[in-house]
Amino acid sequence: MILVSNDDGITSRGISCLVEVMKELGEVLVVAPDSPQSGMGHAITVGDTLRLTESFIFDGVRAYECSGTPADCVKMARHFVLKDNRQPDIVVSGINHGSNTSISVLYSGTMSAAIEGAIEGTPAIGFSLCDYSHKADFTHAPEVVRKVAAQVLQKGLPKGVALNVNIPPKRNEDIRGIRICRQANAKWVEDFDQRFDPNGRSYFWMTGNFVNFDKGEDNDEWAIANNFVSVVPCQFDLTAHQAIPLLNEDWDILR
Amino acid sequence: MILVSNDDGITSRGISCLVEVMKELGEVLVVAPDSPQSGMGHAITVGDTLRLTESFIFDGVRAYECSGTPADCVKMARHFVLKDNRQPDIVVSGINHGSNTSISVLYSGTMSAAIEGAIEGTPAIGFSLCDYSHKADFTHAPEVVRKVAAQVLQKGLPKGVALNVNIPPKRNEDIRGIRICRQANAKWVEDFDQRFDPNGRSYFWMTGNFVNFDKGEDNDEWAIANNFVSVVPCQFDLTAHQAIPLLNEDWDILR
Repeated sequence: MILVSNDDGITSRGISCLVEVMKELGEVLVVAPDSPQSGMGHAITVGDTLRLTESFIFDGVRAYECSGTPADCVKMARHFVLKDNRQPDIVVSGINHGSNTSISVLYSGTMSAAIEGAIEGTPAIGFSLCDYSHKADFTHAPEVVRKVAAQVLQKGLPKGVALNVNIPPKRNEDIRGIRICRQANAKWVEDFDQRFDPNGRSYFWMTGNFVNFDKGEDNDEWAIANNFVSVVPCQFDLTAHQAIPLLNEDWDILR
Repeated sequence: MILVSNDDGITSRGISCLVEVMKELGEVLVVAPDSPQSGMGHAITVGDTLRLTESFIFDGVRAYECSGTPADCVKMARHFVLKDNRQPDIVVSGINHGSNTSISVLYSGTMSAAIEGAIEGTPAIGFSLCDYSHKADFTHAPEVVRKVAAQVLQKGLPKGVALNVNIPPKRNEDIRGIRICRQANAKWVEDFDQRFDPNGRSYFWMTGNFVNFDKGEDNDEWAIANNFVSVVPCQFDLTAHQAIPLLNEDWDILR
């Protein structure tokens, strides 16, 4: 059984595209946010209640919309909808409207749904199309999703790993292939556009400029720029293992 | 200059305790959420506006409350309040009311503020007290915060690393020391308490049971259980580097 979620909400074109492909590969269950949850990172709903409502938006597919975050959706699917009796063979999330390459993986609700799958020991993939346009062309995405999802269903994934798959925007030439990548060394530099409401009180829109410091050809930014699909294996063990001996040697408050 | 934030909100006891200690170590600037943001993970505010208001809650300390998430607070501090002219020497976040050991680091707003600092190249620390009680005893925390923050101010941190510091709850015996740890292999198993509103429609409270699979003595759960302060160096490169050669060898859709 295939669990589908996303962060753009259950009515987005991206999830509709993903559901259509996954129906070819098995029985699909959708639990997705009832409203857009972009930028939610790995947020969960604590200190507030959740709603879960059956949805009939996808023909012949069991589906629910949830008032929570993408991570909440995967948790509710596993521990309430499926009652822990039956677990998915794979969790897929997306297709996100916009890139989740590089540092954006941290802020990505799409990837948090996939990471939740990996925490539970289920192979999991987040798919994103690197085109923010409302009218983005998804026609080249199904073939990529089908290939990658079928490969993961066939071969599984290493323990504790979820895939962050980014698909280049539709171009005149065909996609050149699929590359296993590392997360590029890049960041967002924010700017705050200050405005004033009708009462004269200030408010802000956060805007950001993406800055890529990475000169390598083995990272996801390079892959997308060169019309390859990028596949980054991601882990939820955040430990910087290489720093442990350094701190043990350097710190004098440990003795 | 020391930038202080948190996820429990600017009026919480934990941030007040943290500000008092940091005042001893340098000039303090506070930018913290105007309301509790627990469980926000690395969420940022996209598609909505932000407010930022000066606060006079801390004696002799420049402070602002922000309507956004902990990550938003650090971004606004750096790129709006400080106008990119002057950057903090250190970012400290907390003291969180409750543990952020093990897998909880992913959901932690406290740590997302620290990780934002690390992304900008600033040494950064998230502090949490492993006691969820509203009346938690913080009296043993200042000494720990002072020691760890002074050490980091003196020695710096490896590039791309932020520290996740958890402090055991107050016990009858003194804390046994400070340990550099890895993130324990543990997870939350959720349960959903279904209730019905006055209109007969169902809603849910998410509850969780923490399950620790880790038998090691080098992880944060072990440290806290044994009355040590745990210090986990955390990174924001989520790449599972060890999985790259495995996938390159195993997958047949790459050729």
